Amino acid sequence: MKIVAEPGVPQVVVTREFRAPRELLFRAYAEPFLVKRWLGPAELELVVNQLDPRHGGRWRWTHYDKAGKGYAFHGLYHGDPTPERIVQTYEFDHAPGTVYLNLITFDERDGVTTLTQNTVFFAVEDRDRYVAGGMDRGLRASMAKLDELVNRLAEEAR
Amino acid sequence: MKIVAEPGVPQVVVTREFRAPRELLFRAYAEPFLVKRWLGPAELELVVNQLDPRHGGRWRWTHYDKAGKGYAFHGLYHGDPTPERIVQTYEFDHAPGTVYLNLITFDERDGVTTLTQNTVFFAVEDRDRYVAGGMDRGLRASMAKLDELVNRLAEEAR
Repeated sequence: MKIVAEPGVPQVVVTREFRAPRELLFRAYAEPFLVKRWLGPAELELVVNQLDPRHGGRWRWTHYDKAGKGYAFHGLYHGDPTPERIVQTYEFDHAPGTVYLNLITFDERDGVTTLTQNTVFFAVEDRDRYVAGGMDRGLRASMAKLDELVNRLAEEAR
Repeated sequence: MKIVAEPGVPQVVVTREFRAPRELLFRAYAEPFLVKRWLGPAELELVVNQLDPRHGGRWRWTHYDKAGKGYAFHGLYHGDPTPERIVQTYEFDHAPGTVYLNLITFDERDGVTTLTQNTVFFAVEDRDRYVAGGMDRGLRASMAKLDELVNRLAEEAR
């Protein structure tokens, strides 16, 4: 997994390769029951409150810690999500007003799909808070679980 | 009017002051009949096809040149627009897939409202195309018409 967060630029770009077709990665992002199986740090439980993957559709999910405290995010899909790309606005309930935009692309070549997550913010300070808030740890855990999930789905499909 | 577009940063920040209360500026952004009176270059006619200023609401407008050729933009509102701030996704029909996010804030002090338009893109190249596509000219014309409009609305309200 590669993370690029350049100084002075309100953006984070994450790339990672998966040995799976992009259709399976897309399903892992678009089907609530699958999202629940990989998204978020290992010690938090995810509840997908809403997930309507179409232009103007809303999404909302909450990460719960062991004490039952919830950390909810929500936003909208811009454009109909496809196995090529997903565009979503994001807002963390604990930081209302700090909105950011996320582009996820799935690029498949010879059975390997490169996932790119491109996130842009209105201010470098917003980006820095996002990175400081455990992004790296959460992403590594999420991507490892996503890898496991799409491999399992690929096996089941064989 | 001040425009900041730093090299290597996928962002444009525009600021301008108006001698009018922010409620009037907000109305000029949120009411289709008023939007039509100021938005866009002087030589193009604006048709507001859709404008639903609430969280998840859609907007769409088309600039028509004298030959009748249309240039349409569309997107979604993230969060309910208020006289403090408006957050919108944007996409130009002639550049499908190039989505960007716009934050407009209205900051009023002593009868003067500072409008800030903060636009972020997924790539510096997208920002550069946006700037090269006549942004400066269009913005200057729009802001001058907006100034005239809010001054007239302020006079009518007296």
